[in-house]
Amino acid sequence: MDYQKLSLEKHYEWQGKLEMTSRVKVDGKEALSLAYTPGVAAPCLAIKEDKNLSYALTRRWNTVAVITDGSAVLGLGNIGPLAGMPVMEGKCVLFKEFADIDAIPICLDTQNVDEIVATVRAISLSFGGINLEDISAPRCFEVERRLKELCDIPVFHDDQHGTAIVLAAALKNALKLVKKDISTARLVINGAGSAGIAIAEFLLLLGAKDLVVCDRLGIIDESDRFNCAQNELAKRTNPRKVTGGLKEAIEGADAFIGVSTKDVLSQDMVRSMAAEPIVFAMANPSPEIMPELALEAGARVVATGRSDMPNQINNVLAFPGIFRGALDTRASEINEQMKIAASNALASLVSENELCDTYILPKAFDGRVAPAVAKAVAEAAKASGVAKI
Amino acid sequence: MDYQKLSLEKHYEWQGKLEMTSRVKVDGKEALSLAYTPGVAAPCLAIKEDKNLSYALTRRWNTVAVITDGSAVLGLGNIGPLAGMPVMEGKCVLFKEFADIDAIPICLDTQNVDEIVATVRAISLSFGGINLEDISAPRCFEVERRLKELCDIPVFHDDQHGTAIVLAAALKNALKLVKKDISTARLVINGAGSAGIAIAEFLLLLGAKDLVVCDRLGIIDESDRFNCAQNELAKRTNPRKVTGGLKEAIEGADAFIGVSTKDVLSQDMVRSMAAEPIVFAMANPSPEIMPELALEAGARVVATGRSDMPNQINNVLAFPGIFRGALDTRASEINEQMKIAASNALASLVSENELCDTYILPKAFDGRVAPAVAKAVAEAAKASGVAKI
Repeated sequence: MDYQKLSLEKHYEWQGKLEMTSRVKVDGKEALSLAYTPGVAAPCLAIKEDKNLSYALTRRWNTVAVITDGSAVLGLGNIGPLAGMPVMEGKCVLFKEFADIDAIPICLDTQNVDEIVATVRAISLSFGGINLEDISAPRCFEVERRLKELCDIPVFHDDQHGTAIVLAAALKNALKLVKKDISTARLVINGAGSAGIAIAEFLLLLGAKDLVVCDRLGIIDESDRFNCAQNELAKRTNPRKVTGGLKEAIEGADAFIGVSTKDVLSQDMVRSMAAEPIVFAMANPSPEIMPELALEAGARVVATGRSDMPNQINNVLAFPGIFRGALDTRASEINEQMKIAASNALASLVSENELCDTYILPKAFDGRVAPAVAKAVAEAAKASGVAKI
Repeated sequence: MDYQKLSLEKHYEWQGKLEMTSRVKVDGKEALSLAYTPGVAAPCLAIKEDKNLSYALTRRWNTVAVITDGSAVLGLGNIGPLAGMPVMEGKCVLFKEFADIDAIPICLDTQNVDEIVATVRAISLSFGGINLEDISAPRCFEVERRLKELCDIPVFHDDQHGTAIVLAAALKNALKLVKKDISTARLVINGAGSAGIAIAEFLLLLGAKDLVVCDRLGIIDESDRFNCAQNELAKRTNPRKVTGGLKEAIEGADAFIGVSTKDVLSQDMVRSMAAEPIVFAMANPSPEIMPELALEAGARVVATGRSDMPNQINNVLAFPGIFRGALDTRASEINEQMKIAASNALASLVSENELCDTYILPKAFDGRVAPAVAKAVAEAAKASGVAKI
């Protein structure tokens, strides 16, 4: 099917994928006096006295802003904020569909870090959470770090953490299949943008020791060929001091984790990996290696980002439940404990009996996913002391 | 009825007066591939090629942001942005109810003019129009002026222009009843905040010649007792050089226009007005003089801002239709011609036969209002060259 052509037609037909609806019928003076003046003065004054009541008396408790600057939209690159809106609307539809969250798409007419931070901070109290989306690396790291400091609501860059959480769940189950341990496995990440760096950080947190990260220019190191985020990560990865590029890094590796671009992983590279290699080729829309080629070259477990192939590693498995859990506990942030809980909950939805090479993650439309992730995240928020209710 | 108490209860029950809903059912892989990846790349690229397509391929064509800094919320004053949210949500409900517009409430965590302007500009391309709300004078004038320059979508401060448009319609019909003409009538505005100044500007535009504007400190003049917006207006008002306060201004006046505070207009002041005086006492929630007292003192036509009294001068008569007309023609701004058209359309909905002392404006829930205003505004947008479609 030509999804591009049909999607364009559908977008003309839909005239927008979202709409604002009223939860209150205002059909006469009485209703107007309660929902608006003069009655509305009462909830206003109540919030003025106790700002926490903004969650009870307005929609804030269930509202997330989905914000981009259009600098790294899908695989399309820097197409600008206006052109990013169809993706943001789509993301908001998924928030509603999977977790009944009211998500509002906002595209920023600036790609300046200071301006992005100032703008998002200024609007943040209209929302219960901020989902940053499709902001290019390394700017995204600073934007997120500064906003987390400035806002007392969760700020979560999904391209980083959503991807890392789902990937980690997939890796956990795949390693179980091949009876290897994350602390001794040799792991290679290809692509050191927002997703690649966040995956690396998360896997280190989960106990990975032998992690090598490659980018277009080769294995990342502390030289000025790489950006500051990559330099920083280089200090804590590549313990065997491998030099070169993906070809050198992949030799003897137990798992390949690709968040890069199509066709960069050759069959020969797969053949050079350790026994029963794991290949996660997540480049969109075309993977780093097509699954049939990876399998032919000896890969044991293969996953991609695509919905038409087995083992789809899809952010939709994580972000709806994560924000649901954070909103339900009014968490002040989404911390590492909550991310780990989300990842483990996701992995646990595949039972020992079901786990096999072509089923390492639950399906996107498995109705158990968002509630299970939300529950785990809420419990972790409480246990880690960031829950406000 | 105790609207305050009941409204607070209702707000707890509603848990927010708005919600985001999806116009697209995403219930499987196919739907996901069209509304989101990979299909969504097509509308993104289409907008990148032609930015006007953001109106056809996203919800922008029907979306208005309702934005406040919480500095002048209703009659409550500077209660801050968080406490202003119930009003903004209410306003958005009215946008939907009266004109089927998707309005998104945004409260800004800053009251600094530069920051407000920068923030609103940065988010403006997510919307088809900007409704500024409850921003205090004189800051509101600069905020609006600068945003109108920076944005190519309509920016409209409703407290100013919505009020002025409805007031002017009421005045037009009231003057018809008493057979007086705006160009010769003596008009007094009490209250020189955002509404008062905008009303004065609009009445001057409509041909008023003898206009005296009072504030708490008396009749405005060019001295430094008044702010710059008031100084500027003073140059073009008070042609008879009346000095003093409301008591002096009101003597011999044909109409009193109050956007100030309760009980400031005495019966003696009404008695000092010209024959068949018009008294518009719009202070909320309590008018400048209670209608029965004004009538007893000889007023011919009395209007207030209240829904439980005759002749309600209510912004809801204007803003839904104005934005509907502006969005429908994709107007780049809401200009003076469009405001005049809206006001005249509103006045015309009261036929010669129906027009009487207690019916000078259509009712808020008269279903003809928004469509008639929208039609007039759209025609004026086209005639004045600001319509893009």
